[in-house]
Amino acid sequence: MKIFNSIKEMQVFSLSSKRDGKKVAVVPTMGFLHEGHMSLIDIAKKEADIVVVTIFVNPTQFGPNEDFSRYPRDFERDSRLCHERGTDAIFAPEASEMYPTGASTWITEDSLSKGLCGKSRPLHFRGVTTVVAKLFNAVLPDLAVFGQKDAQQLAVIKRMVRDLNFPVKIIAGPIVREADGLAMSSRNKYLSPDERKNALSISSALREAGKKIFGDSAGLRDFVSSKISSNGGRVDYVEVVDAETLEPDCNFERPLLIAVAAYFGTTRLIDNTII
Amino acid sequence: MKIFNSIKEMQVFSLSSKRDGKKVAVVPTMGFLHEGHMSLIDIAKKEADIVVVTIFVNPTQFGPNEDFSRYPRDFERDSRLCHERGTDAIFAPEASEMYPTGASTWITEDSLSKGLCGKSRPLHFRGVTTVVAKLFNAVLPDLAVFGQKDAQQLAVIKRMVRDLNFPVKIIAGPIVREADGLAMSSRNKYLSPDERKNALSISSALREAGKKIFGDSAGLRDFVSSKISSNGGRVDYVEVVDAETLEPDCNFERPLLIAVAAYFGTTRLIDNTII
Repeated sequence: MKIFNSIKEMQVFSLSSKRDGKKVAVVPTMGFLHEGHMSLIDIAKKEADIVVVTIFVNPTQFGPNEDFSRYPRDFERDSRLCHERGTDAIFAPEASEMYPTGASTWITEDSLSKGLCGKSRPLHFRGVTTVVAKLFNAVLPDLAVFGQKDAQQLAVIKRMVRDLNFPVKIIAGPIVREADGLAMSSRNKYLSPDERKNALSISSALREAGKKIFGDSAGLRDFVSSKISSNGGRVDYVEVVDAETLEPDCNFERPLLIAVAAYFGTTRLIDNTII
Repeated sequence: MKIFNSIKEMQVFSLSSKRDGKKVAVVPTMGFLHEGHMSLIDIAKKEADIVVVTIFVNPTQFGPNEDFSRYPRDFERDSRLCHERGTDAIFAPEASEMYPTGASTWITEDSLSKGLCGKSRPLHFRGVTTVVAKLFNAVLPDLAVFGQKDAQQLAVIKRMVRDLNFPVKIIAGPIVREADGLAMSSRNKYLSPDERKNALSISSALREAGKKIFGDSAGLRDFVSSKISSNGGRVDYVEVVDAETLEPDCNFERPLLIAVAAYFGTTRLIDNTII
């Protein structure tokens, strides 16, 4: 398995793989990998000849009071896990490589990025679209695999890829959960044992909501929201939106996304389900 | 010579050329080609195996009161000129192909794009960076040739390419002038005979300024500005800036760009020289 820190070397590797007729897949991550990431690597291996995992804790997608500095990092463990899973190359640039002095170019998505997480994290998706474009141009993949857990991120990236004509196919990997239902996240590590137990209310509320019949989306929202609140969670949002457009007014005829963000202690968790 | 209107077909042609080991160059234009464009095609042919000329009058780089609808167009003449000059392919998409319904992704450059033309054309460079990124992802070139006449555009695009890691080498083509000195521009066609004559004051002022010694940049600016005004031009700006960073405070030790924008009648012309 190769490890690249330089954009130029990453591009050379990818271009030479492609000249050999190989299909290149990228799995963009912020590291501290878990089984959710591993499932994306598995998908990438099925779809492509060469799998590149990027590991980069992107400073520009964190707000000033968010957890950038304490975001968990363990490159040695990550690279072992990647290697065991058959990854061909890791791209792990320094921040100075990705954001050279005087970097002044940004990519914004002005529609899908505004609701849901965009409300409480106003510059988050600007950081995501910008870094994903930079990573795409460094890895030059034929396809990219993103987790469905970050449903809004997935929708925003699909939109960016369409709008800017990136020659990259986007594939979504299903949410991977712990045995008890908690959606896997690098941030689960922040949870105390009690918070960890209470946080199960998110996935159980989503599971129950998917089985019940509601007259309107307000009823569905209230159901999920009160389940989480009554378990000590502080709800950031519970939204029922069109699964593709993320538009809030939906008529129960197209697939709906129920998306949740909630705090347990100081840890912000997201989860979702499509019904 | 091939003519493509679809992004997908353009990408397929470019990828197959590259798989054959060929180097692809792009010359982005808004059509109504003149010898300035032709000189860029010549440079592209020297540097690459396959030359793609894009012809697209990009609506998003025109302001609401600018000349988008009356911008001159003549595709038949353009394609004849491209063919005669040895162009391999023209990419001429419809606006709906480049900006699908609901397009919501923009690229902004927040530093170099602010001064000079950016002051009077606040959304111009957002349109330029966005469309150039879209064109790069459609044509997938190894190199791109832009004219030095749009000096700020060139600097902004170089910055975008660096910041977003586009694997594209940017080459600048020198300004091509009419026999009497007027910088070639598709917009010269708007000028009445009198305006055409008076507009020579821009290039002659720049030429003279390049030969004189000034104590500071204010003296240089005033010299050029008054030459143009006294010939009936309405100066938008005359600026003396660092040729690379476009920073206004420069010390006459690094190469300086003298950049001009001025109206003759309702026609806005730009020109520049590096001293």
